[in-house]
Order: sequence, then structure tokens, then C-alpha cells
Amino acid sequence: MLNSERPRLDWQLLIEDIANEVSALKSKGKVADYIPELGNVDLDAFGITVQLLNGQRYSTGDYQTNFSVQSISKVFSLTKAFSILKDELWSRVGKEPSGNPFNSLVQLEHENGKPRNPFINAGAIVVADCIMTNTTDSLAMIIDFIRELSDNKTVSIDQDMLQSEKSFGHRNAALAHFMKSYNNIGSEVDAVLDFYFGHCSVAMNCEDIARAFLFLANHGIDPISKKRYLTASQAKRINALLLTCGTYDAAGDFAFRVGMPGKSGVGGGIAAIIPGLLSICVWSPGLDKYGNSLAGVKALELFTTKTGISIF
Amino acid sequence: MLNSERPRLDWQLLIEDIANEVSALKSKGKVADYIPELGNVDLDAFGITVQLLNGQRYSTGDYQTNFSVQSISKVFSLTKAFSILKDELWSRVGKEPSGNPFNSLVQLEHENGKPRNPFINAGAIVVADCIMTNTTDSLAMIIDFIRELSDNKTVSIDQDMLQSEKSFGHRNAALAHFMKSYNNIGSEVDAVLDFYFGHCSVAMNCEDIARAFLFLANHGIDPISKKRYLTASQAKRINALLLTCGTYDAAGDFAFRVGMPGKSGVGGGIAAIIPGLLSICVWSPGLDKYGNSLAGVKALELFTTKTGISIF
Amino acid sequence: MLNSERPRLDWQLLIEDIANEVSALKSKGKVADYIPELGNVDLDAFGITVQLLNGQRYSTGDYQTNFSVQSISKVFSLTKAFSILKDELWSRVGKEPSGNPFNSLVQLEHENGKPRNPFINAGAIVVADCIMTNTTDSLAMIIDFIRELSDNKTVSIDQDMLQSEKSFGHRNAALAHFMKSYNNIGSEVDAVLDFYFGHCSVAMNCEDIARAFLFLANHGIDPISKKRYLTASQAKRINALLLTCGTYDAAGDFAFRVGMPGKSGVGGGIAAIIPGLLSICVWSPGLDKYGNSLAGVKALELFTTKTGISIF
Amino acid sequence: MLNSERPRLDWQLLIEDIANEVSALKSKGKVADYIPELGNVDLDAFGITVQLLNGQRYSTGDYQTNFSVQSISKVFSLTKAFSILKDELWSRVGKEPSGNPFNSLVQLEHENGKPRNPFINAGAIVVADCIMTNTTDSLAMIIDFIRELSDNKTVSIDQDMLQSEKSFGHRNAALAHFMKSYNNIGSEVDAVLDFYFGHCSVAMNCEDIARAFLFLANHGIDPISKKRYLTASQAKRINALLLTCGTYDAAGDFAFRVGMPGKSGVGGGIAAIIPGLLSICVWSPGLDKYGNSLAGVKALELFTTKTGISIF
Repeated sequence: MLNSERPRLDWQLLIEDIANEVSALKSKGKVADYIPELGNVDLDAFGITVQLLNGQRYSTGDYQTNFSVQSISKVFSLTKAFSILKDELWSRVGKEPSGNPFNSLVQLEHENGKPRNPFINAGAIVVADCIMTNTTDSLAMIIDFIRELSDNKTVSIDQDMLQSEKSFGHRNAALAHFMKSYNNIGSEVDAVLDFYFGHCSVAMNCEDIARAFLFLANHGIDPISKKRYLTASQAKRINALLLTCGTYDAAGDFAFRVGMPGKSGVGGGIAAIIPGLLSICVWSPGLDKYGNSLAGVKALELFTTKTGISIF
Repeated sequence: MLNSERPRLDWQLLIEDIANEVSALKSKGKVADYIPELGNVDLDAFGITVQLLNGQRYSTGDYQTNFSVQSISKVFSLTKAFSILKDELWSRVGKEPSGNPFNSLVQLEHENGKPRNPFINAGAIVVADCIMTNTTDSLAMIIDFIRELSDNKTVSIDQDMLQSEKSFGHRNAALAHFMKSYNNIGSEVDAVLDFYFGHCSVAMNCEDIARAFLFLANHGIDPISKKRYLTASQAKRINALLLTCGTYDAAGDFAFRVGMPGKSGVGGGIAAIIPGLLSICVWSPGLDKYGNSLAGVKALELFTTKTGISIF
Repeated sequence: MLNSERPRLDWQLLIEDIANEVSALKSKGKVADYIPELGNVDLDAFGITVQLLNGQRYSTGDYQTNFSVQSISKVFSLTKAFSILKDELWSRVGKEPSGNPFNSLVQLEHENGKPRNPFINAGAIVVADCIMTNTTDSLAMIIDFIRELSDNKTVSIDQDMLQSEKSFGHRNAALAHFMKSYNNIGSEVDAVLDFYFGHCSVAMNCEDIARAFLFLANHGIDPISKKRYLTASQAKRINALLLTCGTYDAAGDFAFRVGMPGKSGVGGGIAAIIPGLLSICVWSPGLDKYGNSLAGVKALELFTTKTGISIF
Repeated sequence: MLNSERPRLDWQLLIEDIANEVSALKSKGKVADYIPELGNVDLDAFGITVQLLNGQRYSTGDYQTNFSVQSISKVFSLTKAFSILKDELWSRVGKEPSGNPFNSLVQLEHENGKPRNPFINAGAIVVADCIMTNTTDSLAMIIDFIRELSDNKTVSIDQDMLQSEKSFGHRNAALAHFMKSYNNIGSEVDAVLDFYFGHCSVAMNCEDIARAFLFLANHGIDPISKKRYLTASQAKRINALLLTCGTYDAAGDFAFRVGMPGKSGVGGGIAAIIPGLLSICVWSPGLDKYGNSLAGVKALELFTTKTGISIF
């Protein structure tokens, strides 16, 4: 259904209804605990922000509480790497859904160290390496970039989270060493991991993230600052990747139920967009078996079902 | 970009330009030959039809030449099975991209005989079995259904193709027996394969197929006959499956480059849709390494690039 | 330790001691039930026969009760195929342990339809096909061969078992069709399966099987009838295959604990040999998680531990 | 055939004949080059030593030239770890053939970080970690152990090789980090790798290695020094592991052709034993596609074929 034909939505009422409906689900998820620091979070938290292209913003719940963005950060680094390397990026990382859990080494071996897509951990580590070989002080640069996108200069790394990530990041170290054995990592493994863990340990709230994703709903241009971050074609392509690969091994189910390009993180956040219309961020720390926020996915499913808005 | 904001397109000129641009690619693909009968086709053929929701239709090239629909038929049987079984269907077949070549047995084994999605061969065989246990004379029924969708009563099975399929279908027989060992096939294997091979051996042209896909671009209702085939939610869900799983192991790349829900067949056809706007069918028998029409994919990429229309 | 240096063993006392020691294990195994007919067996049964090269034979327990030989028969068909095709056989079937459960399709796909070894089901089906293309009335021939090896003209197919196998053999049908799709099966799938199921449905007792394996302990020559079935080199090679691949996915553990070339069947039998010395057959229907007789493996482990006899 | 029945062999003539016969094969192999230092070796080299239990020793060719033992060292560390931890060792490493190339991560993931056997790299790294948590100054200890076994106090680490290993060991670092993520590595990854690379970088010649393996041919006791290193049962079990897992993904073929428990290294050495009779070491740097010495395997095959000696 096209925007112009749709009756005027009461967005605030809508998201409050959704928050009520999913409330019972919050306790059914499981907080990520593979990194101890991730476990220190209130299972009962829930926040949501809808950010329209026209600048209007609607929120409810714990939308101003910071949480760990985790894999949502992969969208920021991919945007940066894509704008720097352009299509050369795809010689080092693929564009296909993985069909396997997000930290799998199996496909990486079958494909000689080239990760299937930039949103599995291996792919995001390669993307991090691509940025490091093309910028100086990459971590400070990417934090600045996230602050600019979110229009919030206080966005920062959660240092406790970062230390926790580093102490328990043997799986990611394995991925990085493995890809280096195939010459698909150029920098030193420890340096790449510092950057990778750093930008995943950023703390943001629903407002920040919804704001930061807005340019992807507007052909690569931030509609408020008018700044262009990607060409229209590049923005379309990142949206396609988000749809097919953005929610780990549940991307098919997410497309089926929700029908929006989106990216989840094990901190419980999910950011998604409708091209030409809006961005949205929902947060609830209880995860389903795929590592996506249980109440968050349901909230987005309700959002597209109740509004009739989806890309399909 | 919304339809209403777009300058009026000269659709006929557009598809003729595209046909010219991809002409050199036709000979670079490879005609499918795993079934001998599929090899008997002119590598130089190319046809395209754009079918708008308002009934207007634009075509060029060999758009009235019949070709073997092959896997495109899986969309017709899935539509039928989904409308009969509703969400019970998903207890027998999954919704996730496979991440493996289209005839792989590997994932089927890892997941105890439940195919990853309805568009890999194993999934389509389960869908066929679902129809058989709920209808009588299933093959005649599905042919009638395809005739109705395409508004062409002459659509028929190519009997030579069917015999060729049956003689060389050991891989599909292996899939069916394997799933039956997990109790995910209820009918006799030979009967299911007869139905499966039958509905894949239908011959249609670009006009027929574009016409038959139109209901998927219109929330499940044929906009010309006004007949409803699926609920809006079901139509959205099939479109999501088409996007994530419709083009074998290249679904990610297809979404990335083309950005339309679509289904390809090894006969060289590809059908795709833009919700709220149009359906399209392109045909060129030379395939790329993933089994998708080489010139066909390029034609669709040009179509979305030149018009700026995509779901992203 | 060499035979000549060993103090004279009281074989009868030895096997009776072993039978007592493993008695408590009989009820801890699980009778195979993937084919209903296999389930109709007394979990408490146990028999053992030791057959020396010099013709002496020692037995205890249910050693004259017939049971279904199942995969033990693969040794008889492999012997026949190897003597007919000689080293050409290895162009169609490999010689490596599979590292996967016995009915896996995964490796078969990775290796283009060539099974890893002749003792996994896929490999035995190829071996059956090799025999069929080189003999007439193959099933009658192989039954005669087994009767001759076991010096028992009453050895026959259990027809109820055979019917049960055929009705529930979809996994094996899948394997056969799959290999035929790679052109590694020459005969019709149904005919190969009839032969394969037929020779696996033979009923024998411990005496029969120990007797039938004796030639493998004597460089390919039956030491009693003096008839040669294999060259010394071929017999050595079958023994090597038995050691590395004879007990499904537990071949390493069997070599480690028992240290004899041996072959198990899901009917609960295990046949094994010590080159230059003896053959042995033990039967107890309760299986471990790998499909090997639980009490049977323990009995053989006790046999090599108590006597100090093993190939290592 | 038992030793006592065999006509007296002229061992020296035998190995000289074998050296002549395999001479043409030397140039058909490929020197390992995944670590640059390994490439600095003469492709034409060939040496062989046969060491009898009675102390007699026969050698020919470059049997006193040092080469990099590489994976042969895994037998020394396994012996040490098995004697320290006894059967508790097998809770951390399996006993089954891998059915995959020697550095595969795939099975490691399927089995939650427990390597399939102690001779694949992952398994040997776990064995190294087991030693480190039970000894101080593990590297000096294992070097002393190798010196004692080989009765050669000059055996040492090749420092250039060690540096080369460390610089190019990303695959092994990946394995170690991966297993640490499953808590199957207790020490720091860098420390374990230093030990692992150290003991694989030892340089020895054919005489040293044949001498060092002699205890495995004599039930765990060095027949010359009379020192016991393993119980008879433990020695039998290591021999079983060598047969089923000692030559990478070609263990089945090695058992089939050669029929001796043996261990190869990518330096081109192979050590093997006949229980109750002898140990043997052959060296030729050209490798086959599985990473085993091409001329070396052939030499051992000729050895067992010409003498009629094998464990089968």
C-alpha cells in the first residue's frame, strides 16, 4: 500500500499498543550470557522509537536507556567500508545468506576464508580490516561517524563491555586467525579484534539508533542533515543485504513475518527501515534461540501487520 | 520512490533498450543439459514481458515462444498448498535460505528431512506431497490453476520434457526417498515425483508467466479478474520467500543487484514482481553458474537500475 | 605376542568367563528397531564361537540360534566383488573411514557419488551393483557362496526380515538413486536393492559366521577345505578395511579397545579375526549408540585383554 | 606369517632394493611449502632405517641427514600425555579417524571443540595443553624425552624452522582459540602454540626416529634400555590410533597398502612399527596430495609386500 493512500496513522498510539501486546513475551527470552557483561541487564526492559523521514519521532518505554549495540554496529562499519572501497569490497566478503549459525567456521572453510556476508562475525571482521587498512585511528573515526549519524555527541564505548568482549572473544580470534591463514586479513589479528570489539561495545539507546539508520530509508542521504553517506544504489544494496542476512540464521523467518530490512544485536536491539518512509529501533534484552530479541521481533511483526506497511 | 512521484515511463522503449543491452550476454550462458530435453533450445532466444496492475502489457523479443517453466512452477504449487494448508504448511517445510546448491542433501540430513524452504527441490517435493494428500487428480488440478492464473487455456505439459525428466530424475528420487525415511512424504514416492515432474514440465511463454504472477504484486488478488488467491498476509509472505530463496544459491546477489522478489527456472525464465505496481517475466536460456538465466538477471538489474524501482 | 610363545589357553573356560562378565551388559543395549522385524528378538540372548585355524571350535550360550547377519554380509559380497573385479573395484568405492554415521549422505555428495568405503551402506550398495553386472542370478550365487564359506547348506534368507527391509528401506533407496545420478550404479535401482536387502536378510548363527570368516585369518585360504578365496594380498587388504571401517563410526574406538579387524551388524552380531590364529563371532542384540552390539564389543575387548592377543 | 616360520631375511639387501625401486618417485612428490622454511630441502633425498627389537639396525641412503619431524612428534607428546593422564586424556580428545583433511575446523565445530583424534593438529594441540598443565618447562622436558627415546643427546629444535612455523601458524592459532572458546584449552593460547610449534620443529634423522619408536613395537618397553614408557595396553592403543589416524586423510589407504601402524610428517618422514618385531623410518621430502611422503609410502608398501610382514 502506498503511503499516500494510507489513512493517517496515530504512530504514538500504535507503538504503545504494540508495547502492551508484547509485554508478556519479555520474560520468555533469554539474556545473552556468552560474555558475562552482557548478562547484567534487566530482562524486563523494553523500548521502541519510530523515526519518520520528515523528522517526527515517536517513542515509548525504555527508549532512552543505553544498551550494547553489538552486531547493529556492523551496519555502521559496512556503510563506511562500502563508501571507501566501493565494489572492491565484495572481492573480500560475499553477499549470500549463510544458512548456518552466526559464528560458524564451516562455510568459511568451504569458501577459502571469504565470509558469506558482512553481517556474520567473520564478514564483519573482514570489513573492520578493510577500514583499518584505509584509515588511521579507525576506532575514533568510527565512533565519530556513529555520533554524527545518531546526532548524539555523547555516544561512547562501554569500557566494561569492551574488556568483557576481549576476555571471552576466542571464537572471534579463531575466525580472524583462520581468515589470515587465507590472506583475507591484512592487519595484525589483535589490532583488528581491538577495533572490532570496540565498535561492537558502543552503548546507544533506541532514539540514537533509529536516528542513525534514517539515511538507509532515504536512498543514502540523511533527510535531516541532508548529508549523503551512500549513493542510492549503495543504500539499496545494503538494504538488500539487511533483508537477506541481517538477522543471523532467522533472516528468512524475519523477512516472512516482518518484511523489513533490519539488523539485530545480541544486546537485544533491532533496527529496521521502510524505504521512503521511516526507520525504527526496538529493544528488549530477552533473545530467542537465533539470538534475536524475542519481544523485539514480535513488536516489528505487529508493526508491519497493523500498519500494512512492508516492503512486500 | 513512490509510483505517483515518478515521471511517466515509456515502458516499451525501456524494455527494448534493455533487450539490446543484454544481447551480447546471451551466448555467454550455458544451456542446462542435466536433462537432455532441456538442451534442445536456441541459446540466442530472448523475450521479456512487463505486466502492469492496470492491465497494460509491454513485450519484446521471443515473448510468445513457449519454454519449460521448470522451477517457476514451484510458485504455483506453493500458492495452492499455502491456500489449502495455511500455516500448517510450515511444519513440513522451512522458510530459510539454504546457503547450498539447489539439490543439496546435506542440510536435509542435518535437519531431519525437513527442507529449508519450498523453493529448493526437496521443499517443492514436500509441497507437492502436501497438495496430493489434500486433492484428487492433483496434476490436472494444478494445470487448471496455472491456466486460470495465466488466463490461457492452452497451457499444457510438454510430454517430451516430462519423459526426459522422469528418466533422469534420480537426484529427485533420492530426495523423495530420503524425506520419506523421515516420514515427511506421505504418498508413494513414484506418485509424488510424477506430480512434481509433471508440473515442472509445463511450457509457457513470457506473457503467460507475467500474467500468472500478477496476483502476487497485488496482495493476493488478481487485479484483472478480481479473484483472490491468497490473503494479503500470505501474498506478502510468499514474496518474502521469493526474495530470500527464489534464485537458488544466488538469492543474496539477486536481491543485491535486482531487488525484486523473483523465481528462476533452469529453462531460462525468471518471473519477478514489484508489489503494488507490476509483474515481469524475462527469458533467455543461457544460464550462469548458479542456474539462473545470465542475460535474464542482467535484464532485471537494468530494469530496476534504469527505473529506480525496487523494493529497497 | 607370538602364538608359539603363549601358554596353552583353555579357550572354553575363557569364553565362559567372558560370557559371565558381560552378562549384566546385555540389558543395557537397545535392540535395533528402524526395521520392525529387527525388533522381534530376545534382548537377553548371547552367544560366542571361537574358531581356530586348526579346526578346533569353542562356543557358549546361544551360539546355535540364528540371527539376522545384516551388515556382516557386506564382507561376503565384498570378498566376491574383489575376487571378480580385482583392483578395478576401487575406482567405484573408496578405502577411507567415513567419520560420519553409517547412513550419511553428506560425504557421498562431497565426493560425487563415490562412497568412502565398502562397509557404509552406500559402499555396499555399489559393491552389490558391481556383482550384479558381472554375474547372473546374483542373489542365489551369493547365498551359495555364504553356504560354502560357512560349510552349512541350510543357511537361508529370512523372508519376513526381507519384506520388512524392503518396506522400510527408503534411506537405502535414497542412497542408490543418489549414486545413480552420479552414474555410479549401473543396474536398475530396484534390482540392486533387492539383491542388497536379500543378502543382508540372511539368518546365521555364531558357528556359521565364525566358520565363514576363517579364510580371512589365513591369507585368503580356507584352512579346512583348503580352498582359496582371495590372494594373500587381497585378504590383508580386506582385513585392513575391516579394522579402519568395519564398525561404523566407532572403528577407531573398536581398534583402540579390541584391536582386531571385525565387522558388526545391527542384528547384534560381530565377526572378527586374528591373522594366523582364529576367527570369532559374538552375538548379543542390544546395541550401543553406534549400532554395534554393546555386550559383543565388551566381550571382544575382554577376549584380547585376557589373552594378550591382538594385531597390535 | 609368524617370525619364527620366516626364512632369514637379508634386511640390508632388502632396503637397498627398495631404495632403488622408489628412486624414480622422489621427484614426483611436492615439497611442503605452506611454511617457507619447509621448502628449503633437497627433493632428491631419501633415507631408510630398519631397527629390530634385538638391537640390530639396517640403513641406506640419507639416513643420517636431519630433517624436520613435524607431525611425527605428535607420537612423542601423546606418549607423554597418555602416561601422565592415563584414560582421562580421552575426555578431551577422541579416538576416531577424522575423514577430513588434517587441518579441518568443520568436525571440531560439530563436536563442540573436542578433536576427533590426537594426530590431527587440533588434537595434538590439546595433547600439548594437557602436558603443559601437568609439567613445568614442558618444552625442555619433551626434548629430553625425545633424546632419551632416540638415545641421541644432540637432538634439538631447528630454530629457523620454529620461527617460520610461528610466523605462518595462523591456522593452528585459529584451532587453539576455537577450542579455548569451548574450554578445551586451559593454558594461554600463545604458550600452548609455542610448545606445540617447538616440539614439531625438532630435527632428527631416520636412525633417531626408528630408534625412538622401538618401544611401541615392544609393548611399551624399550627393548635395549629395558625402560618402560607405557603399559602393554597403552602401547597397543597408541598403535591402534596410529593405524586408524596416523597418516591424515589417507589412513585407510595406508592400512590397505602398507598394513603397519605409522605416523607421517610433512617434513617427509614416516615412522612405523610391526609389533613384536621392528620399527622403521623412511624419509623422502616429496609429498603426495594427502601430505604423506610419496616415495616413503611406496617404500613401506614394498617393505610389507616383499617380506609378507604386516599386522594383517
